[in-house]
Amino acid sequence: MTGRFALNSATTKHWPLPDLVAGCVAAGVDKVGLWREEVAGFGVGRAAKLVRDAGLTVTSLCRGGFFNTGGWLDENRRAIDEAAALGAPVLVLVSGGLPDGSRDVDAARAHVGSAIGELVPHALAAGVRLAIEPLHPMFCSDRCVVATLGHALDLAEPYPVEAVGVVVDTYHLWWDDRVWAGIARAGERIACFQVADWITPLPAGVLLGRGLPGTGCVELRRFREAVDAAGYAGPVEVEVFHADVWDRPGAEVLAEALAGYRTHVV
Amino acid sequence: MTGRFALNSATTKHWPLPDLVAGCVAAGVDKVGLWREEVAGFGVGRAAKLVRDAGLTVTSLCRGGFFNTGGWLDENRRAIDEAAALGAPVLVLVSGGLPDGSRDVDAARAHVGSAIGELVPHALAAGVRLAIEPLHPMFCSDRCVVATLGHALDLAEPYPVEAVGVVVDTYHLWWDDRVWAGIARAGERIACFQVADWITPLPAGVLLGRGLPGTGCVELRRFREAVDAAGYAGPVEVEVFHADVWDRPGAEVLAEALAGYRTHVV
Repeated sequence: MTGRFALNSATTKHWPLPDLVAGCVAAGVDKVGLWREEVAGFGVGRAAKLVRDAGLTVTSLCRGGFFNTGGWLDENRRAIDEAAALGAPVLVLVSGGLPDGSRDVDAARAHVGSAIGELVPHALAAGVRLAIEPLHPMFCSDRCVVATLGHALDLAEPYPVEAVGVVVDTYHLWWDDRVWAGIARAGERIACFQVADWITPLPAGVLLGRGLPGTGCVELRRFREAVDAAGYAGPVEVEVFHADVWDRPGAEVLAEALAGYRTHVV
Repeated sequence: MTGRFALNSATTKHWPLPDLVAGCVAAGVDKVGLWREEVAGFGVGRAAKLVRDAGLTVTSLCRGGFFNTGGWLDENRRAIDEAAALGAPVLVLVSGGLPDGSRDVDAARAHVGSAIGELVPHALAAGVRLAIEPLHPMFCSDRCVVATLGHALDLAEPYPVEAVGVVVDTYHLWWDDRVWAGIARAGERIACFQVADWITPLPAGVLLGRGLPGTGCVELRRFREAVDAAGYAGPVEVEVFHADVWDRPGAEVLAEALAGYRTHVV
């Protein structure tokens, strides 16, 4: 079997969900992280049944957040409900960047904190944990004003640990000399652990520049050992966005992700 | 006059040094930050005389550092000597990324600390202050393993304040929720203050994506007020790398940099 390995479906972006499920079963992979867009395209109920019937579990749903957009409250409540329907214990929150034309990053960050507070009752009722994901600082203005693990933990702190946790994603956090102290501090707040490698040069727009585990410069095993030492015993999701990876057959990418996990993470 | 404004010559990359000097004089700008490459192309002695005869002062020389490359010690000693010859009080240090194939960021950072220590006696003797520049974390692997102001201050701390300071560059630091505390902590360690704005989308390679002051989302005035409150009273260098800016006439870019400084920084 493949232990704690989970395939985040963003890694194999163009693999249709039924093929992804069959491919995971064939590879002995029993855990997947899913994205709302693909689930919506398939139907939440159908996706839940498809995954369950194949004996897979859903480790996380990506993503809620984007608190800088209109309708964020209803949209995030729907995302929580979808996670619950899929049996996903965790909803990943990408908090959103600055409002258009704004330079007020403090205000945007304060809004993220209060927005999460507004979602906590619904999350608790649904049995879904909100996981604040700090994104790499290069995404601060347009995707996520939460740029460090320390800041994510500050935002989580007012709320019950079963309601609000954080995501540790190696791609987003590896550069931070304070990340090891942050992981130790995080302890049981760690709700999700995602793995991708850092490679250069970055492509235009910088979104699709991640590497499969082992192809870059991140100390992936050190991260896995650190989250374990902090008390995390959950899945290890490989989540890679890269145009070249997306162009390849899903089964081939899954095999390579699994090999990278075995060589560089376990 | 133009007060604390200084033009860093990287902003007008293709403006030949004599034209840049004449253009600054015409615009009433009396301070320039220079780069080693252009000075070397012109000759250090000639460049020093050209600038001095025009009544300009050199605020900083970019750059030393790159401690991950062979011959770094001699190269940095030469850079210190060049700064002294130009009358530049500050040599900016971009510390370099990971050695080829390495994943050991801790070792790279430790090496930066000891390398700076090796340069201190030469810097003190030459009367040139070393200024550790934290670069944006998106450059951590390939340009600079020093990614936060806090880390730069940790590296500077063992050395006399007149020998080792730090650079506060708005482009590299704006995303950090701890930057205000960092600037207050920095106090008299602030050896250089550089201004550029953050704009998206980032171009491929991410080096040439900076905006002239006022074109992006950074709270430039807040930064200027923060460094002032920390005791900094030196020049404000506008330093912008952008392919489109480089394609424009130097005098036009200088005028726009100065206007942006007056509207968004002072």
